[in-house]
Amino acid sequence: MPSPPLIGVIGGMGPYAGLHLTRKIFEHTRAQADQEHLPVALLSLPNLPDRTAYLLGQDPVNPAGVLADVAARLDDLGAAVAGMACNTAHAPAIFDAIVDRLHRTGRSIRLLHLIEETARHTRTLLGAGARVGVLATLGTYRFRLYQEALQAAGLVPVVPDEPLQEPLVHRSIYDPQYGIKARSHPVSPMARQGLLSAIAHLQQHGARAIILGCTELPLAFPEPEVQGLPLIDPSDVLARALIRATCPERLRE
Amino acid sequence: MPSPPLIGVIGGMGPYAGLHLTRKIFEHTRAQADQEHLPVALLSLPNLPDRTAYLLGQDPVNPAGVLADVAARLDDLGAAVAGMACNTAHAPAIFDAIVDRLHRTGRSIRLLHLIEETARHTRTLLGAGARVGVLATLGTYRFRLYQEALQAAGLVPVVPDEPLQEPLVHRSIYDPQYGIKARSHPVSPMARQGLLSAIAHLQQHGARAIILGCTELPLAFPEPEVQGLPLIDPSDVLARALIRATCPERLRE
Repeated sequence: MPSPPLIGVIGGMGPYAGLHLTRKIFEHTRAQADQEHLPVALLSLPNLPDRTAYLLGQDPVNPAGVLADVAARLDDLGAAVAGMACNTAHAPAIFDAIVDRLHRTGRSIRLLHLIEETARHTRTLLGAGARVGVLATLGTYRFRLYQEALQAAGLVPVVPDEPLQEPLVHRSIYDPQYGIKARSHPVSPMARQGLLSAIAHLQQHGARAIILGCTELPLAFPEPEVQGLPLIDPSDVLARALIRATCPERLRE
Repeated sequence: MPSPPLIGVIGGMGPYAGLHLTRKIFEHTRAQADQEHLPVALLSLPNLPDRTAYLLGQDPVNPAGVLADVAARLDDLGAAVAGMACNTAHAPAIFDAIVDRLHRTGRSIRLLHLIEETARHTRTLLGAGARVGVLATLGTYRFRLYQEALQAAGLVPVVPDEPLQEPLVHRSIYDPQYGIKARSHPVSPMARQGLLSAIAHLQQHGARAIILGCTELPLAFPEPEVQGLPLIDPSDVLARALIRATCPERLRE
């Protein structure tokens, strides 16, 4: 059997998010032996300009330039498709500029869209018109990345009210004492409790599933559901989309 | 500051061993922010001929050819050094042939040696003449990969007697019912018990530390020591050697 096309992973935002997406590709592959796994290249390059700083106007340089260069290196390696392990990099101002640059330079590598894939998957899971909760960083929240994509897919996004978003969600991720970025093995009870309160709040507002819209959040929730609500890890969805794009017959049921 | 040179990881043998080595590089890097991590490229290509089958004479094709091609692709990407996440690929008949081929084709990428780095590290840890236990697959055991390297480093290797190696160690890794390759989340009590018995046996024969000489074994032993004996994960040693070779000032204490 000829080797399936190479899957590219653009990592480094942060490094563990790139590893997490790569692991998900292996976990969702139907393979009885090492030789049945799919070819994957992970480029974890840390010198990527901060995505949030650009979107907030604090840094004039669009990270799209460097990200398109990474995608071009994956294209040189022979990758047919690639995924980026970072929610914020999927803001239209960045993502569309990457795709435009790859197109203009004649690159054939296809970049899948983490957030649009997640919205489509959620629509299939819950059906049109369903209310879907989103936990994310303040950047992803304010730039409305999940809100827009869910609406475009015919769903109703439910996010925490602004006064709750910062203390319950953002701080559970970023607090230097108890946040997941500072303490992840194990996640602190305070971070998990903040997120559980946010989930209860979203459930009260009718959410029927929760999207873990920040790559740190799955560390706090290894379980598939909480309080009866399914948890959706966008890395699972993107990993499956990457396998489907290159070797659908190896996709695990 | 200019970006440090790229670190290459040759994965796919199996895919999770490549991920494990990549994670160790991140864990051993002193980094307060994503941008302070080191650039790493992981190539996880599954179409690598079986290393053990070649060494046993069951397959005439030396996997060195394909492995040298993977190293050349990492060289094209700009990697200065690379590590292979597989013990058996470090048998002289394979490793030396890769290095020879890279040399003949004018490649400058430097391939570090998992087993020699581990022997040197163990010598520093325990001092000359110390007795060191080794747990490994039957292939690594019979090809004497650790035994030779430890002796060359001035240490005394201690391996299980042949009648114990197969039931206690090899089967704990490979048994289709309870082996680590079949059940790793969590590792079965039977696999762990077999390995603990092997460690007790090595301790009775004077071992002062245990080398986990198969990439599956660290899954059974997340703890740093067992029965008072330090456990040495060669992936930790190789990750540190890769950082030292490219950016020693970022090596975590």
